[in-house]
Amino acid sequence: MSKPKAVVLVSGGLDSTTVLAMAQQQGFDCYTISFDYGQRHRAELNSAANIAKVMGALSHKVISLDLRAIGGSALTDDSLDVPETETKEGDIPITYVPARNTVFMSIALGWAEVLGAQDIFVGVNAVDYSGYPDCRPEYIEAFEAMANLATRAGVEGNRLTIHAPLMKMGKDDIVQWGTANGVDYSLTVSCYQANDEGRACGKCDSCRLRRDGFIQAGLQDPTRYQ
Amino acid sequence: MSKPKAVVLVSGGLDSTTVLAMAQQQGFDCYTISFDYGQRHRAELNSAANIAKVMGALSHKVISLDLRAIGGSALTDDSLDVPETETKEGDIPITYVPARNTVFMSIALGWAEVLGAQDIFVGVNAVDYSGYPDCRPEYIEAFEAMANLATRAGVEGNRLTIHAPLMKMGKDDIVQWGTANGVDYSLTVSCYQANDEGRACGKCDSCRLRRDGFIQAGLQDPTRYQ
Repeated sequence: MSKPKAVVLVSGGLDSTTVLAMAQQQGFDCYTISFDYGQRHRAELNSAANIAKVMGALSHKVISLDLRAIGGSALTDDSLDVPETETKEGDIPITYVPARNTVFMSIALGWAEVLGAQDIFVGVNAVDYSGYPDCRPEYIEAFEAMANLATRAGVEGNRLTIHAPLMKMGKDDIVQWGTANGVDYSLTVSCYQANDEGRACGKCDSCRLRRDGFIQAGLQDPTRYQ
Repeated sequence: MSKPKAVVLVSGGLDSTTVLAMAQQQGFDCYTISFDYGQRHRAELNSAANIAKVMGALSHKVISLDLRAIGGSALTDDSLDVPETETKEGDIPITYVPARNTVFMSIALGWAEVLGAQDIFVGVNAVDYSGYPDCRPEYIEAFEAMANLATRAGVEGNRLTIHAPLMKMGKDDIVQWGTANGVDYSLTVSCYQANDEGRACGKCDSCRLRRDGFIQAGLQDPTRYQ
């Protein structure tokens, strides 16, 4: 019997790579999708493609989409700097890209429909990204409800599920699970401003969270820093 | 006092052009958005840009997005033909593009967030497109609920509204309203396979619906046919 198909959003980072391993462990044939949306560096796209290959995704797609045309984030607007100090509790960070998760999951939804997949995996996390509105559990639930009305699946009685297995995990729990399950984190790039070789700055919010995760988990940090 | 801002999805077709006129009549400053998603012809994009200019949109954006990468529709896959006979009642037509409305509205949502707009107008219609899952009122309601959790607006207590004013209107009612309110339908292109000059085939589902609308409304059809 063939395995069920799942679409997995991969960014080349630590979280989504862990999610890919989780989806595979749950018995899915995984189809990975990345987005070339005008982000600051190509290293994460290269990393995502490499991870998809190494981990045996059945197909890996890179979708081009110009989010720079709408701007509004330090990640998609060169006139805004990526902050190197921590964002104040309760504030939405400037690295938040308006509606990014919604746009990416919508495109993944389209591909899932074409593939006949009823499962989409995404690495959103409410613990580390408490300031991002589109990383909350109630948001994922609302997206799933919408997705079930948006597509053929809804009409034909098949149920679409959005899996966000990292939602309530701390970075230390994530790297602990991944390390125990064979994820090679040296392949992943989390930094908001990595260089062309995928080496991390070690200063941005994303680098800080990642480094602290390995420290708290008591694991060696395999990140390649600049 | 400045007018409130609205983002209006425009395709260059009859429906979305009518919606733009409705949004303006409701007192909104309109920001129009179109998508270059790998559709069969450029005529609709040219038409949309022209309409935005003629009707005084404050800004018009064309977002590039390669939906051909996922395929699955006669509109985005050249190996599938646009049918020239009517789709059977209850079937989802092959011209349905998986998750297209969701993807487009998600990007419009991102722009609305950048602009600080709390209103998005879209020309979806449940009467003519009963076979498209993402043209149903319950879908639009679910999208609005999701949108209010996805963005800054939701966090900061401003409410986002998705307006789908054509939802329950027949094509005849739409062209009647537009004609009475000064919409120049000769600028619009509805055909799924228009030629480079924007001339319509007169045979596809979309042409049929449009022509019947003018006939039923007892209005002269300004469509430029091939």
